[in-house]
Amino acid sequence: MIIETINGPQNLKNLSINDLNILSSEIRETLIKKMSKCGGHMASNLGVVEITLALHTVFNSPIDKIIFDVSHQSYVHKILTGRKDAFLYEEKYDDVSGYSNPEESVHDFFNIGHTSTSISLACGMAKARDLKGEKENIIAVIGDASLDGGESFEALNYAVELGTGLIVVVNDNDMSIPENHGALNRLLNELRDNNGVVENNYFKSLGFEYILVRDGHDLDALIGAFEKVKGTNHPVVVHCCTQKGKGYIFAEKDREKWHWARPFLIETGEYYGGVPAENYGAIVAQFLLEKINNDSDVVVVTASTPLCIGFNAENRKKAGKQFIDVGIAEQNALSMTAAIARRGGKPVFATNSTFYQRAYDQIEQEMCISKCPATMIVTHASVYGHTNDTHAGLYDMTLMANIPNLIYLAPANKEEYLAMLDWSIDQTLAPVAIRVPWTGVHHVQREIPKDYSITKYDTVVKGSKVAIIALGGFFQLGENVVKKLYKETGVSATLINPRFITGIDKSTLDGLKSEHILVVTLEDGIINGGFGSKIAQYYAADDMKVLNKGFSMNIPNRYVPSEWMSENRLHTDQIVEDIKNILCKKYRGNYLNNS
Amino acid sequence: MIIETINGPQNLKNLSINDLNILSSEIRETLIKKMSKCGGHMASNLGVVEITLALHTVFNSPIDKIIFDVSHQSYVHKILTGRKDAFLYEEKYDDVSGYSNPEESVHDFFNIGHTSTSISLACGMAKARDLKGEKENIIAVIGDASLDGGESFEALNYAVELGTGLIVVVNDNDMSIPENHGALNRLLNELRDNNGVVENNYFKSLGFEYILVRDGHDLDALIGAFEKVKGTNHPVVVHCCTQKGKGYIFAEKDREKWHWARPFLIETGEYYGGVPAENYGAIVAQFLLEKINNDSDVVVVTASTPLCIGFNAENRKKAGKQFIDVGIAEQNALSMTAAIARRGGKPVFATNSTFYQRAYDQIEQEMCISKCPATMIVTHASVYGHTNDTHAGLYDMTLMANIPNLIYLAPANKEEYLAMLDWSIDQTLAPVAIRVPWTGVHHVQREIPKDYSITKYDTVVKGSKVAIIALGGFFQLGENVVKKLYKETGVSATLINPRFITGIDKSTLDGLKSEHILVVTLEDGIINGGFGSKIAQYYAADDMKVLNKGFSMNIPNRYVPSEWMSENRLHTDQIVEDIKNILCKKYRGNYLNNS
Repeated sequence: MIIETINGPQNLKNLSINDLNILSSEIRETLIKKMSKCGGHMASNLGVVEITLALHTVFNSPIDKIIFDVSHQSYVHKILTGRKDAFLYEEKYDDVSGYSNPEESVHDFFNIGHTSTSISLACGMAKARDLKGEKENIIAVIGDASLDGGESFEALNYAVELGTGLIVVVNDNDMSIPENHGALNRLLNELRDNNGVVENNYFKSLGFEYILVRDGHDLDALIGAFEKVKGTNHPVVVHCCTQKGKGYIFAEKDREKWHWARPFLIETGEYYGGVPAENYGAIVAQFLLEKINNDSDVVVVTASTPLCIGFNAENRKKAGKQFIDVGIAEQNALSMTAAIARRGGKPVFATNSTFYQRAYDQIEQEMCISKCPATMIVTHASVYGHTNDTHAGLYDMTLMANIPNLIYLAPANKEEYLAMLDWSIDQTLAPVAIRVPWTGVHHVQREIPKDYSITKYDTVVKGSKVAIIALGGFFQLGENVVKKLYKETGVSATLINPRFITGIDKSTLDGLKSEHILVVTLEDGIINGGFGSKIAQYYAADDMKVLNKGFSMNIPNRYVPSEWMSENRLHTDQIVEDIKNILCKKYRGNYLNNS
Repeated sequence: MIIETINGPQNLKNLSINDLNILSSEIRETLIKKMSKCGGHMASNLGVVEITLALHTVFNSPIDKIIFDVSHQSYVHKILTGRKDAFLYEEKYDDVSGYSNPEESVHDFFNIGHTSTSISLACGMAKARDLKGEKENIIAVIGDASLDGGESFEALNYAVELGTGLIVVVNDNDMSIPENHGALNRLLNELRDNNGVVENNYFKSLGFEYILVRDGHDLDALIGAFEKVKGTNHPVVVHCCTQKGKGYIFAEKDREKWHWARPFLIETGEYYGGVPAENYGAIVAQFLLEKINNDSDVVVVTASTPLCIGFNAENRKKAGKQFIDVGIAEQNALSMTAAIARRGGKPVFATNSTFYQRAYDQIEQEMCISKCPATMIVTHASVYGHTNDTHAGLYDMTLMANIPNLIYLAPANKEEYLAMLDWSIDQTLAPVAIRVPWTGVHHVQREIPKDYSITKYDTVVKGSKVAIIALGGFFQLGENVVKKLYKETGVSATLINPRFITGIDKSTLDGLKSEHILVVTLEDGIINGGFGSKIAQYYAADDMKVLNKGFSMNIPNRYVPSEWMSENRLHTDQIVEDIKNILCKKYRGNYLNNS
């Protein structure tokens, strides 16, 4: 196979168009095979095979610099830049990450995982190049959906003023994760349909030269276009129309399903294994659709991640005008959500933990300083969420629980989650965020409060000496610690479900002082500035000892959850051991000392 | 005067154009008089007198909703909506804030202080209106510079898909805080010069109807345009060209100086009182210009706030191509800064503490996960910075000191500041942020380290029992506490200048255990998730008592620094009192107990 001869872009330079087309097929076959075993960003990579081949044929990487936006579509680039073995051979599948990664190759310049930054990064590289008086080409490859993110515009708006050579390749596959949205999507379709000629061209309005490649799978056309812009002394957009999922019939037909594939049977396109019958996506979607049916003020808002709350195409249709997807534009989504609440609507915004950080300013300013009573659902906020460092769901508490006026809730089970959501949607007191427990769907028989306006912890088990405050998705871990600690030491610990990440339940904490010497906090997030840090600060000048259990902020790339738990001493055994050490020291070797 | 008869927009409805013009003059006179006494956003408010008058003449506020972007230009709106007395009468000057404020008036809907959010907020209000089947007009008033912020684009891009009536009034005064930047600025000028007709109209490309009002001070034209778009069922932009500073000759001539005025003599335009001869703006500008002269890789980057590092027009000119202002577009600025560093440049970005939160994602992802060795200067990070809640400079440590790979430094004096900056610019290890001590320019005779790659605290005074860890701008407060504590109790406290906000100097902290019982941290920021919280967590399971001194996260609007210090028990006397209480409790009434 030709693919086996490609050890770097230099091996492409003398291939004929015919060879390159054969290579395209080989790459697609390789991608499909690997992803059928490991899963991955399927549809986007199948769509950029020819663009990537043409770029590496025309340009001279790594002298010329190609920057992939989000970089979930950089698999082909990895194959062509010395990393083919990690795609060809099963035993090497884990050698590369799913995103661009400077530690892997000199052809990658940044660890990228969030959208809409590539044009800015290209502007910065171009500026440094110019200061040094050098001349290489700098190319940003960006999908149409990533153009919706505000930073893309900021960079396009600035590029002309930068006044230098810069190439933006728009990979227009007419899709975001679900369908794409917004005026730009419509405009790109118009350009597609009208051979690149429209009355008001967005890119030209911002001073870019504009070139259309109508068929982004036509290697001749792509190479021709890239040759034309090579060495440009001004900013230029090459708009390439592609088919997301190209070459795998199932992916071409259902592009949303195949945006990120789980392992599947190649012949049928069926995923191995199912989704657990009980999962928070389906549960909350059903709950929200009922709310929507009963109240025309309720509206669900997302920024291209509707599936995180189970809003698949069918549910989106059911919600009708009471569902909004603004595209990958979290800042707009959060400000809109705030304003819907201020005008008397009942908005529920949802996205993954990691994407909330893209709109911190809007949450802090528009939502919280202005006290707009909207609801934000935070998903994937867990060590068991995404394991790529760029997508870690472990920072949200540090970010959001230190914002004034926000009520940030951490349900530990389904019943609490829905009760909190029900309360939040109808209340008009404050902005509310709810951190979905991502460790599985658990249930509880206890009576659940209906009102969450005042920070009140739930003392589930009353004990002494040690109190375990186990937050949200780590509540069950807390239960296990209590059991094991009793078994090993005879100490009956108190177990608390705090339910609130923001605020401090002083009465509960003060109440612990008389019969406890140690408070242990468990949280599924980084401990720096997180939930436990508030408890540590509260007791800091008292005699109470505090042990904060959570994750270190330096999250490794592609961690294995159980290993990362272990390194942070978060397995039940480890926690019990650490508690015993403190008790032992305090009581001079006797866990049950009553002095 | 007519202005005295205006108790709300209803009083405008029957005024003739002649009366409205007289009222314009009265408003300008009122604004100039008030700002000459109190300072304020001078030039922007003088520029929007007629736009605001025309809006309130044509529309029916508060049923119709007018949302001012940034809202620093809402003084005229306040005068017209029942708050004139706060501008007319000196004893009432303090009755209103400088930004829109729902607590002041039903005509204000949000507490707004950061740019580029108004179109999103208008979209959200329009969505809620439509869900309720109501019909009011919703109007966003946005300056040309605020259009550069990505969120404005996100909202413009989404508005057409929202498919409903929405009015965006662009107040084009051709300025940001300094001169405006970017392609859009050029485009707006072209539209100005060509009677609204250009080949590729940005607003039309995004599906907006576009209307030009060539003279934004012509009340007839403005009222005509607003009447035309009133009741629109689709999104429309009304582009109004205005003169920033209109009606005050000095402000018309030097718009940057008059963006935010200090109190001044009306006749001459001279500010009362000068800037202190020694100030960090001038000091760092001189330092950076020298670096720029000696090294063509050094480049200073800002996002419309060059004055925070003393880069006035003269210094910007001196820096030439080694200075970049991207406009109010922090996300683009931070990603560019990261990429300049990755490509071998030596970028120094600078802005106010409060604006870093607009690019958290870029700092965390592009800058820090990718380990790009750039420098970020953080100014106004202090209780003595801006006192409006939307601009408080007290959150940055919670945000930034919990980001992996970042080195966040807190110099306590000029010598440390420049040594850190010097080191940071040339190092290639990590991204570095420097928090400028905003409590005044202090000096030190001690020898200052040249390398800041490893977290190492500086023990300035060795004592016992109590250790004061006094960070950055609060170091001098720490010195005062040590003195007063000795005087009142005879306790000679240890005094530490930690220099590092990130990381923990374990060796120093462990060393304190043997002869100290209390560690007090002082920080000029919120204590939630801040510097002190790391120290509290470090000692949480030990016997060491910790007292974190800093600010509560619920920062009041328009606080008075000394009062807010007092409420947080941060005056020297209060800190000493709190230390004495802890010592007393521990030693049963005897500060010097040696048991």
